[in-house]
Amino acid sequence: MKTGLLAILSLGFISSTVLAGKHHSDYKLTPDPEGQYFRLGACPDPNACILPPTESQFHVGGLFDLRVELHAYDKNSRESTPVPYKSFKTKVRKDNGDWVDASRYFHHPQPKVEQWNFNWTQSLEVEYADLLHSDAKPIDVAVTSRIWRKLKFDQPGTYYVKLEYGPKKSYTARYKVVEKKKPKRKAKNVILFISDGTNVGAITAARAISRQHTSGKYKDLLSFEDFDELGHVITNSVDSLLTDSANSASAYATGHKSSVNALGVYADSSSDPFDDPKVELLTERIRRRQPKKAIGIATTAYTADATPSAWFCHTRKRSMSANIIDQLLHGVKNWTEPVLPDVFLGGGAEYFSGKKSLDGKDYFKELTKSGYKSVFNKKDLKKYNGKDKLFGVFRQGNLDTWLERNVYVNNTAGNGAHPDNSGKDQLGSAQPGLEDMTIKALETLKKRGGKDGFFLMSEAASVDKMFHVFDHSRGLADLVELDVTIKKTVEWLKKNGEYEDTLILLTADHAHSFDVYGSVDSEYMRKAKDEDEKISAIGVYQNAGFPGYYDKNGDGFPDNWNPKVTLAFGTNNGPAHHEAWRVSANGPRVPSVSNDHGVLVPNPKDMGGNFGQGLLVNNNLPHGNDQGVHSMSDVFIYANGPGSELFKKTFENWELFFKMADAMDL
Amino acid sequence: MKTGLLAILSLGFISSTVLAGKHHSDYKLTPDPEGQYFRLGACPDPNACILPPTESQFHVGGLFDLRVELHAYDKNSRESTPVPYKSFKTKVRKDNGDWVDASRYFHHPQPKVEQWNFNWTQSLEVEYADLLHSDAKPIDVAVTSRIWRKLKFDQPGTYYVKLEYGPKKSYTARYKVVEKKKPKRKAKNVILFISDGTNVGAITAARAISRQHTSGKYKDLLSFEDFDELGHVITNSVDSLLTDSANSASAYATGHKSSVNALGVYADSSSDPFDDPKVELLTERIRRRQPKKAIGIATTAYTADATPSAWFCHTRKRSMSANIIDQLLHGVKNWTEPVLPDVFLGGGAEYFSGKKSLDGKDYFKELTKSGYKSVFNKKDLKKYNGKDKLFGVFRQGNLDTWLERNVYVNNTAGNGAHPDNSGKDQLGSAQPGLEDMTIKALETLKKRGGKDGFFLMSEAASVDKMFHVFDHSRGLADLVELDVTIKKTVEWLKKNGEYEDTLILLTADHAHSFDVYGSVDSEYMRKAKDEDEKISAIGVYQNAGFPGYYDKNGDGFPDNWNPKVTLAFGTNNGPAHHEAWRVSANGPRVPSVSNDHGVLVPNPKDMGGNFGQGLLVNNNLPHGNDQGVHSMSDVFIYANGPGSELFKKTFENWELFFKMADAMDL
Repeated sequence: MKTGLLAILSLGFISSTVLAGKHHSDYKLTPDPEGQYFRLGACPDPNACILPPTESQFHVGGLFDLRVELHAYDKNSRESTPVPYKSFKTKVRKDNGDWVDASRYFHHPQPKVEQWNFNWTQSLEVEYADLLHSDAKPIDVAVTSRIWRKLKFDQPGTYYVKLEYGPKKSYTARYKVVEKKKPKRKAKNVILFISDGTNVGAITAARAISRQHTSGKYKDLLSFEDFDELGHVITNSVDSLLTDSANSASAYATGHKSSVNALGVYADSSSDPFDDPKVELLTERIRRRQPKKAIGIATTAYTADATPSAWFCHTRKRSMSANIIDQLLHGVKNWTEPVLPDVFLGGGAEYFSGKKSLDGKDYFKELTKSGYKSVFNKKDLKKYNGKDKLFGVFRQGNLDTWLERNVYVNNTAGNGAHPDNSGKDQLGSAQPGLEDMTIKALETLKKRGGKDGFFLMSEAASVDKMFHVFDHSRGLADLVELDVTIKKTVEWLKKNGEYEDTLILLTADHAHSFDVYGSVDSEYMRKAKDEDEKISAIGVYQNAGFPGYYDKNGDGFPDNWNPKVTLAFGTNNGPAHHEAWRVSANGPRVPSVSNDHGVLVPNPKDMGGNFGQGLLVNNNLPHGNDQGVHSMSDVFIYANGPGSELFKKTFENWELFFKMADAMDL
Repeated sequence: MKTGLLAILSLGFISSTVLAGKHHSDYKLTPDPEGQYFRLGACPDPNACILPPTESQFHVGGLFDLRVELHAYDKNSRESTPVPYKSFKTKVRKDNGDWVDASRYFHHPQPKVEQWNFNWTQSLEVEYADLLHSDAKPIDVAVTSRIWRKLKFDQPGTYYVKLEYGPKKSYTARYKVVEKKKPKRKAKNVILFISDGTNVGAITAARAISRQHTSGKYKDLLSFEDFDELGHVITNSVDSLLTDSANSASAYATGHKSSVNALGVYADSSSDPFDDPKVELLTERIRRRQPKKAIGIATTAYTADATPSAWFCHTRKRSMSANIIDQLLHGVKNWTEPVLPDVFLGGGAEYFSGKKSLDGKDYFKELTKSGYKSVFNKKDLKKYNGKDKLFGVFRQGNLDTWLERNVYVNNTAGNGAHPDNSGKDQLGSAQPGLEDMTIKALETLKKRGGKDGFFLMSEAASVDKMFHVFDHSRGLADLVELDVTIKKTVEWLKKNGEYEDTLILLTADHAHSFDVYGSVDSEYMRKAKDEDEKISAIGVYQNAGFPGYYDKNGDGFPDNWNPKVTLAFGTNNGPAHHEAWRVSANGPRVPSVSNDHGVLVPNPKDMGGNFGQGLLVNNNLPHGNDQGVHSMSDVFIYANGPGSELFKKTFENWELFFKMADAMDL
């Protein structure tokens, strides 16, 4: 058999019969026989590329752009300048109907032909050519392209898009267009909690540190563990088994699995990060179809971060933060109106005014002009009792972690992160937590949405951010904060008569390979004189016993984050660093730093300056990764309320969009 | 607050109101204020111990032994010989009834008082005293005890067992006794598949290597992923967050979370591994209540291993293999009749005759005398077409892995593992796989159980065994074999008219912290000249792409287990070893070995002798661990068919027993 990733993609494609009732004879694919990576991840044909890629699914009436690209290149002659394809035809057919020219089919003016070149990095050898002292180079690709904007399919069925090019060559993509499914009972409100970067092992650990038990039997489980349904979500990207938070949030927001770093678009090969073919966001669909429904976004991250911005922007480059915030108010060209969420809460003040905002604009003023009431600290957030649209940014960058906001409060002094961008401090005590933001969002959304209900996305962002730097205590604290937030959310919904009409979802966007494998006597390890003594502080199996976490005051959080007997936890990847299993009291960990030669080494200041007291963990990541990376494991989804039956069993991340839209009858 | 593990246990206990409707005033606990480990894991009182421990649950009529122990010791004077407690009373009350002497309550002769001493290892410091050049010693404990055998509760309710001792001291345990629950539809047959040591990350990886996809969208999922229900199972032991396969299988088989290494008993402090207080096995319950139902056990492990033997034996020491096999035929004293399963298939021939069998007995002969037909190879297993009880052991030790049986078949030459214990080889080709054993078990059980149905436990054992030694390819191969086995099982059930009446369960007994974090160009890594080049072979996020596994021949397995682009996977704990992400062609990996000084070092012969080609992973386990250890993560449970609605959401391992019994109306 063929080796390499192409075999599985191409052959899987040829024999695929999932999406269509019968196999259309015209539907086949000639795979690119070489190269470690597909061009754009989703272009299996040697020269043609259609985005959205084959096997995409749409709702009847869902909006999307269609881009076709033809790639001319010469693999064997690196120096040659490839001659771009000149003529090509794009055709569409439904089921067994006739092929129709795409522009005619969609009643769209014939788009102009665009041309550009890009470099195709075929393999890791090319990626690391410098390091390997290799003369391997990316392949120069000349592109000819057309894009059709704001299309939709009016009828359910199987559709084919064919790109004819060169002498007798063609490539066909297949789409499935479906009607809405009816849930048993329609959800008036949907609350989507996203615990960023959280796997099942982290849920298990959050329970172990926050729940009382008698000899291993829990008194009660986490707040969401008695939800109606539990399912698993597959998190692959379109171009990789491993996803980032942009692509995965985008799959949830659009129903389209995309490329790493992409938000609300399929990444094309052009250099413009805003011209990529777009797909409609759930929030945009709400504005089109249920305009009176209220929309809220709350996050402990900066608001231009991937998970929140997936619900209001389109770009294939998540790092374009200033532009993303501009899209919050102004949307993107060639598309629908901006979402303008009714409630918008989080961090990232620096992109709203001053030198980091787009062209130095003052978006605070623009927001006020657009009818938003603005709050910039916890007190004002809590005080807000109006019916106006609510905007709150509470810090530059990400909000501080729960441990900084509640335990190591002095760590936030000197952060210079005030949301007025003046350089003043914004102390942890001035920042709301996820619970504050979520409950205020619910209050406001209920007022604004009324009988038409609301959609709220609320993100526990620092689980992921802290797991990346192996600060698992901080990550778990933010996860426990989410657990408490969900408990309070259920209480609020019940008290306010919305519980029966609200679908509550909790999922993650991807995993980290976090798990607990024993316990550690952290005092014993701290006093250890040598490696032998250090490892003797670790207990496995029966020697693990139970950790010393305990919630005596009943607030849902452990009273002590640094007990003598703590959890031995870790991940399976990372740069070289040390692990001592104690909480870094001076702030979130920085596990790895560059030495004078630019090589990543364990940070001597990690774990409160107690270098050498932990165990050395070696690097197993490629160059430049100074943090751990995401893992492939499916993530959980818990669902409660009307429509929850749609979210059981195992499904793919892009399906979440369809299930949420179906639950809302969108 | 108090630190250490005792606080959480004790205080959790005092405020616990889960199991009883109201809080009984007599029910409180004085915690042991010191020490890292409880005595026996389940004795929170300083001196008294009651087994089953407080918060245990029983079905009305379920059998159990009751042991009480009084522990006399002097913590401060290590040299003293403690004076054992002499007089104590054991009393029982139901709900708010009167206290009644235990022997009277259970109509049981007053048991004689037993006395013995044991050493209580309080902490890791004591455990590792030698290594630490410490004079810390275990505490000498003098025990006075009584045990009541084969008890049962005849009515549902809350029960209290009180141990009165010393001047005015007492300790009370609380039990919940419940009626059977009715499922929507009764399950005539139950098949319990156990994928030993498998977490959600491993399921995700098994799918990625065996299922076709188009740009990350799967053509279809694993065979069990469309089962009716998905749940999560919490795997804690009674004495630790981390379990082994004995205790966890025992929780499934008995409804009682026990101690590490225990099977069908709560571990007491006496030295006899067979006098511990027993709890009734599901299989024993079947023999008592539904005697015509057929029982089968199939495993790829040796049959005296923890997971299979949990269904027919009682001992607190899983390592007593010869005695365990003796119990298969003869049961254990002071208890019910032996289970004598109708079908019994696996490895471990060495415990049935010759020098490793109990007193050198020939159990092969005894089995024949007891009416079993015996088979010793794949061919004879497949040929068997009778209605007699079926016994098959196919190898000494564990069956070879799927990769040895199907790909690296030459590795089994010279194993000297013939099941006749003659020292001859038993080649991989002569050993059945999990599918062969499971389907033959179903055929035979259907004949024997008839309209009364059957219970089958079928275990994929080598997932765990291979994950322990970081031979993740071999572990995943055995997991894919399980997937194929389940597919074939469903086909068999449908063909034989049993599908609608069969509850199929798939769960794991515990996790390993396995996950995938990227891909590896294994050829590129093999050729790497230095560390820089090695790590450049690893791709993360978009550079991971998709691995080169592909199932072209449609048998459900990848056609090539060593593709150029493979998965970058790993775990979060282990002894020092190397990782090169290639399949060990000469047999399962031995990642770590002792050097001349008795220190564990990476095995120079690991990965086919290619030492140095992988990346070094440092040790993070305590002394003596030459393999990775289990992790804490909840595991999945998939359920299909009648009664499956009982297995959704998150529950504890001991609850599985009750749910299975309820599903069978046992």
